[in-house]
Amino acid sequence: MSAEATSIRFVKGHGTQNDFLLIPDTDATLGEQLDEAFTRRIADRHAGLGADGVIRVVPAARVPGHEDLDDVEWFMDYRNADGSVAEMCGNGVRVMARYLWESGLADGPMLSIATRGGVRTVHAEPDGTFTVEMGHAKPASTRQMSFVAVGGNTWPATPVWVPNPHAVVFVDDVAAAGLLTEPPQVRPAAVFPESANVEFVVDRGPRHIALRVWERGVGETRSCGTGVCAAAWAAMRRDGVGAGSTYAVDVPGGQLSVTERPDGELLLTGPAVLGVRGTVDTES
Amino acid sequence: MSAEATSIRFVKGHGTQNDFLLIPDTDATLGEQLDEAFTRRIADRHAGLGADGVIRVVPAARVPGHEDLDDVEWFMDYRNADGSVAEMCGNGVRVMARYLWESGLADGPMLSIATRGGVRTVHAEPDGTFTVEMGHAKPASTRQMSFVAVGGNTWPATPVWVPNPHAVVFVDDVAAAGLLTEPPQVRPAAVFPESANVEFVVDRGPRHIALRVWERGVGETRSCGTGVCAAAWAAMRRDGVGAGSTYAVDVPGGQLSVTERPDGELLLTGPAVLGVRGTVDTES
Repeated sequence: MSAEATSIRFVKGHGTQNDFLLIPDTDATLGEQLDEAFTRRIADRHAGLGADGVIRVVPAARVPGHEDLDDVEWFMDYRNADGSVAEMCGNGVRVMARYLWESGLADGPMLSIATRGGVRTVHAEPDGTFTVEMGHAKPASTRQMSFVAVGGNTWPATPVWVPNPHAVVFVDDVAAAGLLTEPPQVRPAAVFPESANVEFVVDRGPRHIALRVWERGVGETRSCGTGVCAAAWAAMRRDGVGAGSTYAVDVPGGQLSVTERPDGELLLTGPAVLGVRGTVDTES
Repeated sequence: MSAEATSIRFVKGHGTQNDFLLIPDTDATLGEQLDEAFTRRIADRHAGLGADGVIRVVPAARVPGHEDLDDVEWFMDYRNADGSVAEMCGNGVRVMARYLWESGLADGPMLSIATRGGVRTVHAEPDGTFTVEMGHAKPASTRQMSFVAVGGNTWPATPVWVPNPHAVVFVDDVAAAGLLTEPPQVRPAAVFPESANVEFVVDRGPRHIALRVWERGVGETRSCGTGVCAAAWAAMRRDGVGAGSTYAVDVPGGQLSVTERPDGELLLTGPAVLGVRGTVDTES
């Protein structure tokens, strides 16, 4: 054992089964311990506590480059399960907001949180759900057609950035994509120079879709906030509906909804659940 | 908060990604706290710590009905992730043995552990793997043919008890079973009055098979010790090989091997990994 802290506190939480380990770091002392290796270790599903991502909850005033934001008290220091630093997560920021409110660390019903992808504002809704402003979707800068291929099947795709790249595919049956043991092929590279997340989308009724999502570098997941926004945005264009409309989106882990505000801002609404709390030893 | 202990220690571990929360209970005081509801809470993948099962590690001398076993010091109090009490788990008992050895709570290289399914003996192998004696497989008591159906496909099955019921199906491609979003249909009820676990098995080479497993009441899993034994036993019969042979079995979570001893005892060999340690609060 070193002289360092030998255990750190965590709170597990999820939104539509996209799950997170929240690490409260009100004194901003854990940044170095929560490095790539330790994140990977605790996020591992089978040898660790299991999570899609780890969120260090730290005062924005203690994070270089985010000290001077007006009315923004907290920073979301987000890492993916593989330890890599990430900008933001639409499901994770709702869970973090709920944690801050329940812990008395923030006042409601609206809370702005700094992230590497900019400041995100979360609203607590009267029905117990939470809404996060996800920014604007951007279409491809080229008219070149794009495609997604899995096994022997190829579908035309709708490319969209939220702001990470997505290829949205409308299918008759999400089972058509098969087991997805290999990444779907996304092409051409001229449209997706950094590859893309893929959403396989089916209709469930008026303004109601369902999807399976493949996250670039991760695999098939239970839910993906930006993927849900990308799919709803593409379905709204396909259906020719105007801004101001709301789509329900079923994911394997539950249901979310997406509203496009008249100014183009996408609002992602859904549950945020806080689960078990405890400590994890920093050395085994 | 009550006057009870407010947090309990855990160690996470897995064998071929079949994962467990080990709860050391050397004083035999945690039996009541680790009830169905708390087990379900901590085993939950998204709101809990995530595990296929929870193993309370308790002195056999403190467990009614298991006090007087010769040379058996420890009892494996096993619950499934849904909180139900279970007899035994072939991956879990290897992980528990490794934990006892590494913690200095037992001497190697052979350790007998009491379980609700009887005493199981684990051997530490020189190559770092662990072998557990799984008992004898039993064929069906009837010659009536049995089948497994998924979607529009039906295959003949080999029924076998280890001692829980299994239906082993040999297929050309494990993808033929599809996404397995619904339980495979097992029939007839005369052969499987309590339904069965299902293994879809392909050949990988001489004495080398691979499988996908559907666990009754759970769903598709990364690994299943009794399912691996059932599949190897069925493949040995199909191939007409005698007792004493060893089959390698690939599962989604890794590789195990099964040896049938000349006396019919099935030996399951594979890894046991210890992961993170920590505490979990008993109240949220």
